[in-house]
Amino acid sequence: MNEASPPAGPASDRVRLRRVHHRGHYDRASLDAVLDAGQVCHLGFATAEGPYVIPTLYWREGDHVYFHGSSASRTLRGLADGLQVCLTVSLIDGLVLARSGFHCSVNYRAAMLFGHAELVTDAAEVTARMKTFVDGLVPGQWERLRPVTDQELKATKLLRLKIDEASAKIRTGGPLDDEEDYALPIWAGVVPMETRYGAPIPDPRNLAATPLPDAIAALQGQ
Amino acid sequence: MNEASPPAGPASDRVRLRRVHHRGHYDRASLDAVLDAGQVCHLGFATAEGPYVIPTLYWREGDHVYFHGSSASRTLRGLADGLQVCLTVSLIDGLVLARSGFHCSVNYRAAMLFGHAELVTDAAEVTARMKTFVDGLVPGQWERLRPVTDQELKATKLLRLKIDEASAKIRTGGPLDDEEDYALPIWAGVVPMETRYGAPIPDPRNLAATPLPDAIAALQGQ
Ligand SMILES: Cc1cc2nc3c(=O)[nH]c(=O)nc-3n(C[C@H](O)[C@H](O)[C@H](O)COP(=O)(O)OP(=O)(O)OC[C@H]3O[C@@H](n4cnc5c(N)ncnc54)[C@H](O)[C@@H]3O)c2cc1C
Ligand SMILES: Cc1cc2nc3c(=O)[nH]c(=O)nc-3n(C[C@H](O)[C@H](O)[C@H](O)COP(=O)(O)OP(=O)(O)OC[C@H]3O[C@@H](n4cnc5c(N)ncnc54)[C@H](O)[C@@H]3O)c2cc1C
Ligand code: HEM
Ligand code: HEM
Repeated sequence: MNEASPPAGPASDRVRLRRVHHRGHYDRASLDAVLDAGQVCHLGFATAEGPYVIPTLYWREGDHVYFHGSSASRTLRGLADGLQVCLTVSLIDGLVLARSGFHCSVNYRAAMLFGHAELVTDAAEVTARMKTFVDGLVPGQWERLRPVTDQELKATKLLRLKIDEASAKIRTGGPLDDEEDYALPIWAGVVPMETRYGAPIPDPRNLAATPLPDAIAALQGQ
Repeated sequence: MNEASPPAGPASDRVRLRRVHHRGHYDRASLDAVLDAGQVCHLGFATAEGPYVIPTLYWREGDHVYFHGSSASRTLRGLADGLQVCLTVSLIDGLVLARSGFHCSVNYRAAMLFGHAELVTDAAEVTARMKTFVDGLVPGQWERLRPVTDQELKATKLLRLKIDEASAKIRTGGPLDDEEDYALPIWAGVVPMETRYGAPIPDPRNLAATPLPDAIAALQGQ
């Protein structure tokens, strides 16, 4: 059949949105769009001491979200040992100013993934994934860098979480006011917010003749 | 004595940084500087189903961080009923490009608060705090809006968490490479990142003669 598949429903009751549930999306295209737009996730897990929320860089490759850090990291060790994780990505796109405080809001895109993370142990696999991470931030950067050493790989833990039990929640557009409030002479609208790279600042210890690679120069304004 | 008090140490063993611990700060001035620079926090808690991480707007007043939402919100209900919370704020300030992948990093500011949130029940107190929230986003905005109603206050839950068991972690500055790598002709440096407001977009249903308030116009570029 050539018809588009119907929008996916929630993979579990846990990921079904209750509040403002029309903002929920469960299909991979919506999830991937949010995941591919972010850089930082917040990893939530609980130990006997209570809940923790740890900000960490991440990237997506195929059906997985990857994140890395020290082999000795408490967070990564706990997750590799099987603690359940909630991985949340959120992006704020604008301040929504309504005619009443009650209807003020923000425009946003968010994704929440639940499950158990998996340790990537094969050194060649770790190297390949770290290359995707680095090149995803700055195209072609991996080849410009001093090659990674075995000792560095040993000091690094790479984990991945499958995109499986997941939800996205997205708000776009202007304010939605109570009908009678539209008659009030109050300015309403959206003030967009954007995160952008500024001008690259060279390290004072760069060798005199080291040019700024085009791919790094091109980040500015992105 | 006129001497400055020594830098505060961790309030508990739980908030003592293990990884890259020289980036840790436990004094109120450092914590407040991070908290006052952010808008979105991530609330972590755990139920029988597992951990959850919920992005939410927040603001600080004195010794507390406040956040709000629906009276029916699962998160706010759980926290008001006594679930332990970890509230994390993170800001990303730049991409740190080193001469090796291993030493690449990001500049960031983060704060983590642990404890039990408290429900604010007094309607006058809720109103006063919501005014601070709105005016903190746009100075003077509360007085421009249609006044809040009793019914709206009933639909709203306001919680606060005391800044008590808390840590900040901050990275600034350029890359730190292995000494021998400084001899390599590889461009290294920082690409700063900034989040800014863009030009306000008026709601199509604004009355024709409604001017853009100066305080909203002034957000652009901030
Ligand atoms: C930048 C930003 C700022 C926000 N500010 C506020 C605020 O100030 N006050 C407020 O009340 N809410 C805010 N939200 C929305 C908030 O994240 C929750 O969606 C909302 O509070 C409902 O919480 P709940 O516990 O009732 O969720 P429920 O609807 O009970 O959650 C059920 C399931 O829905 C899914 N889900 C819920 N929230 C999200 C999400 N954000 N992203 C992806 N999946 C989700 C999860 O799978 C969750 O397990 C904000 C969201 C973003 C991204
Ligand atoms: C934007 C951003 C991106 C990051 N990206 C990565 C990454 O890709 N990989 C990586 O390994 N780390 C990253 N970090 C650092 C990460 O948040 C942790 O600090 C680090 O992973 C150490 O984790 P741990 O579990 O070993 O912490 P531990 O040092 O064992 O934590 C002990 C205590 O220190 C405090 N603490 C720990 N981390 C923070 C924090 N970030 N802010 C405030 N207090 C804290 C808490 O009170 C915690 O209970 C990033 C941080 C930020 C803000
Ligand atoms: C552009 C690419 C990269 C970025 C932006 C990046 C970013 C980060 C950040 C933000 C941290 C946390 C530091 C802190 O706690 O303050 C970190 C830790 C770490 N990274 Fe990376 N990283 C990159 C590439 C790599 C590569 C290629 C490797 C290894 C092959 C690696 C190995 C590590 C290790 C081992 C740690 C733990 C440091 C410690 O806690 O002592 N990173 N990285
Ligand atoms: C500038 C000021 C404000 C901003 C930016 C703001 C932002 C938000 C956001 C982002 C949400 C989440 C909506 C979602 O889940 O998609 C929310 C929910 C909510 N806010 Fe606010 N808010 C503001 C002021 C207020 C005020 C003044 C009140 C009440 C007096 C209020 C009451 C509520 C309620 C009841 C909800 C829950 C909505 C629901 O889940 O049905 N807000 N707010």
